[in-house]
Amino acid sequence: MKKYIYPQKSDWQILTQRPTQSFADIEETVKGIFKEVQQKGENALKKYTSLFDGVLINDILVSEEEIKQAIQIITPELKEAIANAKANITKFHMLQKRSKIEVETTNGVNCWMEKRPIEKVGLYIPGGTAPLFSTVLMLAIPAQIAGCKEIVLCSPPDKNGKINPAILYTAQLCGVTKILKVGGIQAIAGLTFGTDTIPKVSKIFGPGNQFVTVAKQVATQYGVAIDMPAGPSELLVFADETAIPSFVASDLLSQAEHGSDSQVILVTTSKSILKSVKEEVESQLKQLPRQNIASKAIENSKLILVKDKTEAIDFINEYAPEHFIVCSKYEEYFIENISNAGSVFIGNYTPESAGDYASGTNHTLPTNGYAKNYSGVSLDSFLKSITFQRISKDGLRNLGKTIEIMAEAEGLQAHKNAVSIRLKALENEN
Amino acid sequence: MKKYIYPQKSDWQILTQRPTQSFADIEETVKGIFKEVQQKGENALKKYTSLFDGVLINDILVSEEEIKQAIQIITPELKEAIANAKANITKFHMLQKRSKIEVETTNGVNCWMEKRPIEKVGLYIPGGTAPLFSTVLMLAIPAQIAGCKEIVLCSPPDKNGKINPAILYTAQLCGVTKILKVGGIQAIAGLTFGTDTIPKVSKIFGPGNQFVTVAKQVATQYGVAIDMPAGPSELLVFADETAIPSFVASDLLSQAEHGSDSQVILVTTSKSILKSVKEEVESQLKQLPRQNIASKAIENSKLILVKDKTEAIDFINEYAPEHFIVCSKYEEYFIENISNAGSVFIGNYTPESAGDYASGTNHTLPTNGYAKNYSGVSLDSFLKSITFQRISKDGLRNLGKTIEIMAEAEGLQAHKNAVSIRLKALENEN
Repeated sequence: MKKYIYPQKSDWQILTQRPTQSFADIEETVKGIFKEVQQKGENALKKYTSLFDGVLINDILVSEEEIKQAIQIITPELKEAIANAKANITKFHMLQKRSKIEVETTNGVNCWMEKRPIEKVGLYIPGGTAPLFSTVLMLAIPAQIAGCKEIVLCSPPDKNGKINPAILYTAQLCGVTKILKVGGIQAIAGLTFGTDTIPKVSKIFGPGNQFVTVAKQVATQYGVAIDMPAGPSELLVFADETAIPSFVASDLLSQAEHGSDSQVILVTTSKSILKSVKEEVESQLKQLPRQNIASKAIENSKLILVKDKTEAIDFINEYAPEHFIVCSKYEEYFIENISNAGSVFIGNYTPESAGDYASGTNHTLPTNGYAKNYSGVSLDSFLKSITFQRISKDGLRNLGKTIEIMAEAEGLQAHKNAVSIRLKALENEN
Repeated sequence: MKKYIYPQKSDWQILTQRPTQSFADIEETVKGIFKEVQQKGENALKKYTSLFDGVLINDILVSEEEIKQAIQIITPELKEAIANAKANITKFHMLQKRSKIEVETTNGVNCWMEKRPIEKVGLYIPGGTAPLFSTVLMLAIPAQIAGCKEIVLCSPPDKNGKINPAILYTAQLCGVTKILKVGGIQAIAGLTFGTDTIPKVSKIFGPGNQFVTVAKQVATQYGVAIDMPAGPSELLVFADETAIPSFVASDLLSQAEHGSDSQVILVTTSKSILKSVKEEVESQLKQLPRQNIASKAIENSKLILVKDKTEAIDFINEYAPEHFIVCSKYEEYFIENISNAGSVFIGNYTPESAGDYASGTNHTLPTNGYAKNYSGVSLDSFLKSITFQRISKDGLRNLGKTIEIMAEAEGLQAHKNAVSIRLKALENEN
């Protein structure tokens, strides 16, 4: 862990930097596979599944039988845990529903706004060492609450041509309408263009490695929306002397085990907390099964001593962390003044992993400083706003002149005409 | 105008297509200018302003004096019209404010979500023949209501080095904090990197020609967010025999005058309406000052006869128009069943130009079929959601086991540890 004792403000730019990712090489590969999936559809999917996942798949669609098996395999204990998490995530996302808002802005001029679901969405769930069924909860639950008609899930098959049963179990539980054994670039391309088995969707959600990240960016060039640009996961903890060093260390390590490029930062006003967190991290690290991954992330992590809470919040807002834990006697100050963060965890008994799994908030959050301009995934991510207006004859009498004057001043005569022709008809009525 | 009488569903793909825009050539130019602005800052801005706008600008920043002059030049009549529009737009966007939502998902587990402003935003207002001060209203009003700290407006200078006074007047009226005489690619690059006079912003809003559109796309590669991908403006009218042909024609023409690539479509269930709208368009077109522009758009416009309202709404949802006017005895059916549209205008006395200027709804809307997956600009476009959670000791006792089981099942031991270490401490407390 690298220590920074009272760094100057001029050093902040370096301290808030994330490792730059160069996508230029990958982009050509991605575009090539996109073209092939667009032209050859299903055959291209199979070719790249064989190449990247090392397995020949005849039927990409997960069958009813496979889903039934998965339901049987999952232990009652895990089923109950998933049910608890689902209940909390559902509560928090149901609360985000919003009824139509409506106002008569001028007499006779009624304007309203309603949310309607994005009809077809794609959820990407990575394969690999950690079967992220928690991400299925985080994406499928709000999609279902929003009322999306098609909720398509893609996940790469393992060497035996299977998707992890916990992913299948959670998907069927949360209303996913179609599950497909396809991952990586070829899955994102399939969701973008549609194939015989994969429906073409309007928006793609979900995490992935750098290939999936670039593929999602390329998908946007074909008119598909994505949840957000993605980067390695991040945690910033602010701790003062009221924090418990072993707890803070466990949080930093939980983030570090995600990947060797995870970003882990402690900001503190206390020299002794800095020292003891560092010692605790080193000691707890030794007991982790994913020690190799975590230790690399910890090597690049930063321990930053700042002079007071004002400097702390300024730095944190400049860094814009994905996850932000506050263990401080001034927690209200931080809650009030945090502008840029994905999700905030308050107090000694609120580990980040609560939000990762089960408290109810969404774990799909902006990384890489994007908390300055993006929200995490929420119910709104699966909805669009549509505005409506209905103007009565009297309404147009009241507002018409204003529109005519403005259209004229912008030199748009036909815009003015659309009002004038109606006002003239109304005059003749009188 | 091209007529399509009872087209087959298999023809819809062609009927819903927009003219494809090829950005490949432009992209190199844009990236070159971005690099130069990044390296040379202010000097690059001046160079390209001289090259593209044909004027040498010493001071890019609009002075207090210039703003004062603009306030004096604008007629009282236009000032009043702008004030009316501002009042309506403010009412509609204030209504979109949302207080914090909060729920105790499990006993002792409190989760909430709050919206906080994006701190620095850039508004782009095109120059050219139509001085779009209405777009200043549509972007600056919600930015100010959201509480954005810096609202930076860029607009290209004319040959005399000036910005249209209506734009300056509206900008100062709506809380824009800085106005800069710079347009095109160089303005978007300036907002992306920051220069001596242009602040670096987190999100860029506003319309523009194809160079600006590509520049906004390139800006996203440098971490800046944008309002939405842009294309030529569009209007689709559904009219049955209750519609008034001269009104419908005036609406189609108001859209057509935007540009020769504007998309104008009539969908109708009535042969006689189709015929009379066509005649009205031809007759009204002759009287327009922007006849040249409008007639090209009208040449490519489509008149589509469908068999009933069900087929109509299916086609309209497939097309996903930016603007959708409904003049029908079945208007409630269309309101209820429209899934994909930017903004909907209902009835014979609701011209699209009402929403363009003054009714209160926003006129920055998704084009090119993006109404399937994007919302128009709203108050939310200037805000981010942040989630918060505070878990008490009892809360962690209630939820801890669920988190442990799920983390274990995902193979993320350190995530589990962050809970276990706290539960153990609580056991010792007992």
